[in-house]
Amino acid sequence: MNEFSQGAAWIKGQVVPIAEATIGVTDWAVTHSDVTYDVVPVRNGGFFRLGDYLDRFEASISACRMNIGMSQAQISNALQAIVARSGLRHAYCAMVAARGTPLTPGSRDPRDCDNHFYAWCVPYIHVVKPEIANQGVKIWLSEDVRRIPPDSVNPLVKNYHWGDFTAGLFEAKDRGFETVILPDHAGNVTEGPGFNLFSIKGKSAVTPDTSVLHGITRRTALELCREAGFETTERDLPIDELMEADEVFLTSSGGGIIPVSQIGERVFSNGHAGPASIRLRQRYFELMDDPAYRTDVAY
Amino acid sequence: MNEFSQGAAWIKGQVVPIAEATIGVTDWAVTHSDVTYDVVPVRNGGFFRLGDYLDRFEASISACRMNIGMSQAQISNALQAIVARSGLRHAYCAMVAARGTPLTPGSRDPRDCDNHFYAWCVPYIHVVKPEIANQGVKIWLSEDVRRIPPDSVNPLVKNYHWGDFTAGLFEAKDRGFETVILPDHAGNVTEGPGFNLFSIKGKSAVTPDTSVLHGITRRTALELCREAGFETTERDLPIDELMEADEVFLTSSGGGIIPVSQIGERVFSNGHAGPASIRLRQRYFELMDDPAYRTDVAY
Repeated sequence: MNEFSQGAAWIKGQVVPIAEATIGVTDWAVTHSDVTYDVVPVRNGGFFRLGDYLDRFEASISACRMNIGMSQAQISNALQAIVARSGLRHAYCAMVAARGTPLTPGSRDPRDCDNHFYAWCVPYIHVVKPEIANQGVKIWLSEDVRRIPPDSVNPLVKNYHWGDFTAGLFEAKDRGFETVILPDHAGNVTEGPGFNLFSIKGKSAVTPDTSVLHGITRRTALELCREAGFETTERDLPIDELMEADEVFLTSSGGGIIPVSQIGERVFSNGHAGPASIRLRQRYFELMDDPAYRTDVAY
Repeated sequence: MNEFSQGAAWIKGQVVPIAEATIGVTDWAVTHSDVTYDVVPVRNGGFFRLGDYLDRFEASISACRMNIGMSQAQISNALQAIVARSGLRHAYCAMVAARGTPLTPGSRDPRDCDNHFYAWCVPYIHVVKPEIANQGVKIWLSEDVRRIPPDSVNPLVKNYHWGDFTAGLFEAKDRGFETVILPDHAGNVTEGPGFNLFSIKGKSAVTPDTSVLHGITRRTALELCREAGFETTERDLPIDELMEADEVFLTSSGGGIIPVSQIGERVFSNGHAGPASIRLRQRYFELMDDPAYRTDVAY
């Protein structure tokens, strides 16, 4: 154990222990949640699909009209530096673009701000504990909360606007469920705090397409579904249809493919992880160790 | 000028210069925007309606199911300490309750976190520059962005979910307008970044009631409207009705009552501040100096 073993951060060009990684309380990243980010998983000492995560991060920054003055190579170097310094073999590695503060004090114009980049890594985070994920997770479909609609906040730009998720999590936890998925305002299911959702029925796999982040793990799951012989479709998924699925699973950079055993009162696969979901979960972890998808960390 | 002259902050019981006031990058206040706050204005060396702001802050904390372990008296003392230390006679003074981080590392349960309080003050911020407010401000009604609905994020709990406002601000600034107001999904007007909105027609004053923060300055404006002989109503305000108003004004703790001269192409009061709005603006500033509403800062 050393001061970096719980994580490290890249702040203004310096690598510091995670406990010392801070941001100013007046930064619009805090006061307006005016920030975009991405998270790349590190497994067995290698980044998984790093290029894909960097591409999405760059697209998010552009959509936010920020300029952080860092190339993909420079961002990649920063991520390498912090994971190497931490010594973590399995890590959750976040890259962040923040609006900053106005160059003219008192300005209310987002075009006037000193955008900046920082990054941090911590020991790998599972959105659902692996021992629960392996058995199938019980999730709650929110009755009170609706996902923030895409014409209010663009879900394709990965963001920290988690107020709906947090309210939904309280609702789920109070009822003894592990996590929550949110419906939209039209009766479709969307996503949950940190994950997308898939429904399997016969040889068809469906995942919601609007009001959700287009997750990299979602993309991987679509590929693995096709590899396993499923026909994949990205479209609105009505709650009624979801409840008629053979199997349901979640996808997240924080835990891969996570089988679902129950949604509210509805039990799937006799209360266990479904067989297709288990196989896809195994394949995901195999893929994470495939050299074709890995960028080794230079510890 | 000293290191506190640009502001001061109360962090973990210590008063520090604003430039040193930071929060950890892994705090859920940042990564989930899981945070509530309030802002009390200081004018001529006194807090305005401090008790009302403290009451709303306490209600917000309760709604978020946070416990910051601070009484109203202790919060008030913290605010006093930072404004006094800064020496600022006119200040924008923020009090913040943050979710913190899980006591069990890796937990995804918001009930497990170490909630905490901090506060900061800076020189008074105007959401619209006074020289513009005095003439009447030109605002943009967003065409592309809808206010986050109340069943996604509760607007009565003052929050940092400004993604919709930020997108709207870009839309407004690109078109040469000073700021923006957002419609809801049903064709009513709601609020803007840091302010509520009022419509005056004949002897009637209307302000939106749902999908908006119930601002303290909104409350003061309702009182001043009644004092001036207007009948006041808090209800949905359709865009079409707004555009038929005699006068429109904004209300904010960052600038009081702010006359509007134009919304998009629609010009009000021949492109100037309306006479009723000007009188209400003057009355608001008089009220801020009224001892009945003031809590003097002990510099």
